[in-house]
This record gives sequence, C-alpha cells and structure tokens, in this order.
Amino acid sequence: MITEWTETTEAGVTHPAGFRAAGARAGLKREGTDLALIVSDRPAAVAGVFTTNAVKASCVAWSAEVARGGSARAIVANSGNANCCNGPRGDADNRRMAELTAQHLNIAPEHVATASTGIIGHPLDLDRVEAGIAAAVQALDSGPDADLRAARAIMTTDLVEKQAAVTVRSSLWPSAVRIGGMCKGSGMIAPRMAGPHATMLCFLTTDARVPAPALQRTLEHAVRRTFNRITVDGDTSTNDMVLVLAGGQGEHVSATGGALDDFAEALERICLRLAREVARDGEGATKLAEVCVRGARSQEDAERIARTVAESPLVKTALYGCDPNWGRILMAVGRAGVPLDPARLDVLIGDTPVFIQGARAEFDTAAASAYLSRKEVRITVDLHSGDSAVSFWTCDYSYDYIRINAEYHT
Amino acid sequence: MITEWTETTEAGVTHPAGFRAAGARAGLKREGTDLALIVSDRPAAVAGVFTTNAVKASCVAWSAEVARGGSARAIVANSGNANCCNGPRGDADNRRMAELTAQHLNIAPEHVATASTGIIGHPLDLDRVEAGIAAAVQALDSGPDADLRAARAIMTTDLVEKQAAVTVRSSLWPSAVRIGGMCKGSGMIAPRMAGPHATMLCFLTTDARVPAPALQRTLEHAVRRTFNRITVDGDTSTNDMVLVLAGGQGEHVSATGGALDDFAEALERICLRLAREVARDGEGATKLAEVCVRGARSQEDAERIARTVAESPLVKTALYGCDPNWGRILMAVGRAGVPLDPARLDVLIGDTPVFIQGARAEFDTAAASAYLSRKEVRITVDLHSGDSAVSFWTCDYSYDYIRINAEYHT
Repeated sequence: MITEWTETTEAGVTHPAGFRAAGARAGLKREGTDLALIVSDRPAAVAGVFTTNAVKASCVAWSAEVARGGSARAIVANSGNANCCNGPRGDADNRRMAELTAQHLNIAPEHVATASTGIIGHPLDLDRVEAGIAAAVQALDSGPDADLRAARAIMTTDLVEKQAAVTVRSSLWPSAVRIGGMCKGSGMIAPRMAGPHATMLCFLTTDARVPAPALQRTLEHAVRRTFNRITVDGDTSTNDMVLVLAGGQGEHVSATGGALDDFAEALERICLRLAREVARDGEGATKLAEVCVRGARSQEDAERIARTVAESPLVKTALYGCDPNWGRILMAVGRAGVPLDPARLDVLIGDTPVFIQGARAEFDTAAASAYLSRKEVRITVDLHSGDSAVSFWTCDYSYDYIRINAEYHT
Repeated sequence: MITEWTETTEAGVTHPAGFRAAGARAGLKREGTDLALIVSDRPAAVAGVFTTNAVKASCVAWSAEVARGGSARAIVANSGNANCCNGPRGDADNRRMAELTAQHLNIAPEHVATASTGIIGHPLDLDRVEAGIAAAVQALDSGPDADLRAARAIMTTDLVEKQAAVTVRSSLWPSAVRIGGMCKGSGMIAPRMAGPHATMLCFLTTDARVPAPALQRTLEHAVRRTFNRITVDGDTSTNDMVLVLAGGQGEHVSATGGALDDFAEALERICLRLAREVARDGEGATKLAEVCVRGARSQEDAERIARTVAESPLVKTALYGCDPNWGRILMAVGRAGVPLDPARLDVLIGDTPVFIQGARAEFDTAAASAYLSRKEVRITVDLHSGDSAVSFWTCDYSYDYIRINAEYHT
C-alpha cells in the first residue's frame, strides 16, 4: 500500500538519483531550445509504448527496438522537426542522431532512444542536431534547473512546460521510490499507444529497480488508462511515445510482487498527472474537461463513449461557449456505436443533473453556465447498464485552435 | 442507359407531376418559416433511411414505421426544434403532428411522415405547429415558388436553400422521369444512415413508379454512396433522414429490371448533388473539399480512410489556411485503422503530386496554396494496394465554425 506521496512540479526527470538532463538549442525551431537529453549514469531498464498510427516517424521504430533490448542509457529528443515521412534518409538521420549522442556520451548507440516532434516531411538538419547534442552533453546536470531546461526543449505549440516528480513510500518497500517525468503535447493529440508532430512525448525516470519486462507491462497498463485517455483534436500523431528508464543509483527498491503493484500505481498516478496537463494545454484550450462515463457494460463501451464525447466538435465548442448543452452530449453518446437505452441515461454537468433517466431535468442554466466557465470542469454520463466507468480528458475548441492550426504553414 | 439529363436548382420537390409543397411560419424559430409540407396527390410508394445514432428523435421511429408501410401521402417537417430526448411526450407530440397534418389533408395519419430539426430537449409547441400546418395546407402549390418556400422552411444554420430537380431520359424508359429533391444541413453533419439537430434532412419526389421495396433498396444504395459520405463535424445527428416518395401523376415509368438500374443511377446523381451542397454549406465553411481515396483493398478501407481525412480537425484547419500540409493528410490516413504501407502512398493536392511512393515530392507550394484558396478543392490519396476508390466530401474549419457553435446557446 502506498503510504506517502510527496509530489512537485518544481522537479522532473532528475528527481530520481542517477539521472542527469539538459536542454539546448540546435536551431531546428525558429527560437528557443529544441534538443533535450536525459542520461542515466548506469544502464537502466527501459520500456516504451509507441503510436499505433500506420504512418510512423523514424524515431518510433528505432526506440521500439531500444525498448525491446531492455536496457538504455539515454534519451535524445528534438523538437521542431518530426523526422517523419522522410523515407530511408529519415531512418538514417535518426540512427545518426542516436550515434552522435552515443559518441558524445561514450556509450553504445543501441542504448540511446530517440524521439522527435515537429513538422512532418522535412529532412532533419544533422549539423544542427549535432551541435545541439554537443551543447546538451556539456550542459548535463541534475536538479530542478536541468529538469526545466530539458522539459522546455521538447515543447512545440505547448504554452507551458509539463513535468512532475514524486517521492513515494509503500508499506511493501524498504525505502522511498522516486519517479520523475516530463512530457509535451498540445495539438495532434489523441494518443493510442501500444507496446509502441505536435506529438505527445513523455519521458519518465525512476530509481526503483524493475526488470524490463515488468516495467513494460507496468507502463502499458498505466498508459492505457492515462495518456490513451486524453484528446485534444482526435488526431493521433505519427510520433507519440512514452519511455521510462528504471534503475538509477541511490536507494533501491526492487519492485516485484506486491511491491511492483504499488510501483505500478505510483507510475499510473504520475502518468495521469502529466496526461491531464497535456489536455489542459491543448491548442487554444481555455479549460480542461473530464468526461466521466459510468454504469457501462464494459470498460471498452465506457471508453468508446467517453472518447466520442471528448472528441465531439459540437461538445467542445459548447464547452468553450460555457453552454450546458446536454443535447450535444447525448448526440455524441448516441453516435459512439455502443448499444444503449436512452431512457436510462443520466447526464450531469459538474454535480448538477441536467438529464435524468431519459428526461430533461429542471436545473439552473445560469449556474450551469457559470460552472462551465471554470478552468476545470466535469461532464458525467451514467448509462445505468453495468459497473464499468472510465474518465477521459479533453479541452475546449476556441478561436485560438483555428488560429494556431490555420495560420501555421508548412 | 441514361440518354438525357436536364437539371436545375430553380425547381425542387414539385418538379415531378402529382406533388404540391409549401413552407409556412409556425413560430418555432425566432424568425422565418419553419414548417414545410410535401403532399402527393395520390398514395405514393415511400422509402426512407434514418440515423444510426442510438439516441433518436421521435420523428425517426415514426417515419421509419411509415416507410415500412410502403405507402405515404405527405411529409411534414419542422425546423427550430428537433423534438429529441423529450421522452414519451415527444413521441406523443410527434404523433400529433402527423395527425394534425392528416386531418387538414383528410388522409390517414399513417400516411404522413414527420421530420424535425433544431434544438434537442425542448418540448414542441403544438399550438404553433398546428398553426403552421394549417397555413402550409392553405399555401400548398406546385411550381418553383412553392418548392423554394418548402426548401427554405427546413433551414436552420444553413445559409442557402438546397434543392435540385431533374428531367431524365433512359433508353429503357418509354418517357421521361422527373426527380425533385430538397435538403438541409450545415452542422452536426456526419450522416450514417441505414434502413434509419442541425440535422441532415432530405426529401425526394419522383413521378416514376417504383414498388416500395425496390425504392427502399435503391435509396439505401444511393445514400450509402452520397449522404453517408459527407461530413462537416463528424457529429452524427439524432434526426438525420432521407425520404423518397414515388408515384405522382403524369407520365409514368415503371422502373423494374434495367429500367430500375437507370432510375437508381438518376436517384444517386441527385442525392450526390444535394449531399455535396450540404458539405459546401457546412457551418463556417469557406470551401468544399473532395477527399478521394483510391488504390484501396476494399471499399470499406477506402471509405474509412477518406472519412478519417475528411473529419480530421488538423486537415480541415489546414484547408482553411490554404496550407498544402500533406503531413497532416498522411497522419490522418495513418490513424484510420487500416493496415497500409506508407512507402507506397501518393498524395495529390488537386492534380499536383505532393508525396509520391512514400517520399516528399518537389512541388510549387505557392501554387498549391493558391489552388487551396479555391471554392472547391480535391485531395487524392492513392494507396497502390488494390482497386477500390471512394470520394468523401467535407468542408474547412474556420473561425466562423467556432463562432456559430460556441455563441449558440441552449
């Protein structure tokens, strides 16, 4: 059982002992840093999940191979260029990015995971990448400043950096475990990752000792319930990736059996924290919305309905307009492809029932509208047909969503 | 074989002999007419397809029952109120709408199909509906003015009325066949109709004699290839409906065998014409876009990919921005859930290849951007994996899409 949970956003991937990080400027973006590096002092167990988009960036296949190897020392990530759809040259450039990092760190290229985010279909400028790697290696450090620099270097249309760190104790562990994480993502966000531009990237570190196969299972479970349950625009990227490195130095907890379950819970909590931040920082978003579907026959049914509501443009524009428009919510519930009885449905906006057992409920529309003007809101749909429940996180569609995506030019 | 095709948008549902129509004000919308009536002088064969949304308006079940009966005399449709999610009262109100129409026309209520479009979850004001029906019955007429009044009375966020009429000859017919149609729809448009708010409604008439079962098969086939291949926002309405009445007076063509095939072709052409007008008039749209997917292994694969590209918010905002962003197109192709080999893909913007066999093509981006500033554009994706091809129609996402849907309030 988890007995203590001390979380902060002032630290990130070097919160667990044995990790260093850096952010540097390679010059791929017009301004700002655009190359991040995370290094484990010792070989770490590694696990990863990757986009299921049939069109995949070069980094996806490479890093999936690194994850299959089970051991890694470093993650190198660039922003500003997705290195996707660049054909054999893209694959060669990606490999070179790993090799250059390995040379500078004096480690094996097979121990360097790569990640890219940015525009699709433009060749990577390797000279700039190498300069960025060199600068990042020079700047490697641990501590809050290094964490922040690394987290900022992977941002694209993100408005804020996203990181979290936790020190957690369990009744089944001899000492504390530390987990750190950073992620980015704002548009082209509807991750559907499996045992694999503005893309969703997340890198996690921990000083717990978890064998790679268990780490992989743990990560897949966590991601299914967190990152795979957020959406900004329903558009699944070619570059989505979550990587976790386990086995830094310092205190060690060997997570197996019940101790592994507690580690899994801790990892999922951190993933949820970071995933929600991605939805909150969605392109043009003015609010974070939780879509909770309960009373479903199965998790799959609940998730399908929650995703459909969370992706509905009419629901998302109503959220922006602070309009308690339950008709649009019901429309989206109904189009999810899940058999259901509309006469049993409840819909709540916040804690206010607006539709009960298939009929309009009397409610204070002004109060509901005021509730929807908050920065964080919740919509609940109860199907009264079973025991399964799922939460999904989304954001609203605003004028800025159009501005960001129509005025951006390739 | 069809030998002559004379089409006009100056006429509509009373173009075939034996039909009258009217539009009147019931007072359900703030202004303008909001009640349309189409009457066949004699019992007509009827067929219908209806939304597959699990949440259905009261008119859907009623009109599906009328269509099952195979014979109808009238269609009554109101705009401004979807009469959806109003529980048993909604069903009773809908039945009353049919009964009132039947009384005024001295026909059986079972011969009156109903349709509604507008806000969900507000009870129908029957006094107003009855006043509208009375006024419409008084105004029943045939000819271009009556057609236009009927077509306008079903509009919601539509900017323009949508109708078409054709006189068509076939080598297999003894005389000409006339088909007329009107439809509406601008938002909540992603019809997925089967033998089934701003909703998609379409009413068709013809003086051909087609038995109801054949008419139903013909309509289903046409709708699958036309109305079910348009999208504005991916949000499938609770009220979508296409109805066709066949068997007015005047010259008669009994459509069976090869003659029926030619009728089916004519019906599909008119459906396509009207469906494209719905996508063109999508909420906030500045252009109509055809997404053509070819070289697919199956129609299902082609349609799934075309729908995903057509619904992608990132593709739709790029269209608004006149940005030849083929990376977003490939992202959407890849996330459609169809296995494919990215190295075989071609993408064309208009006639310009921008991505060939998995690699970026050199092209004039300024010219491609200029092409995308047209009112009607085409994107083609060739999978080079088979012989199936499908076209889908969509529109762009503009600031006005957000304005219309965020500033609209329940």
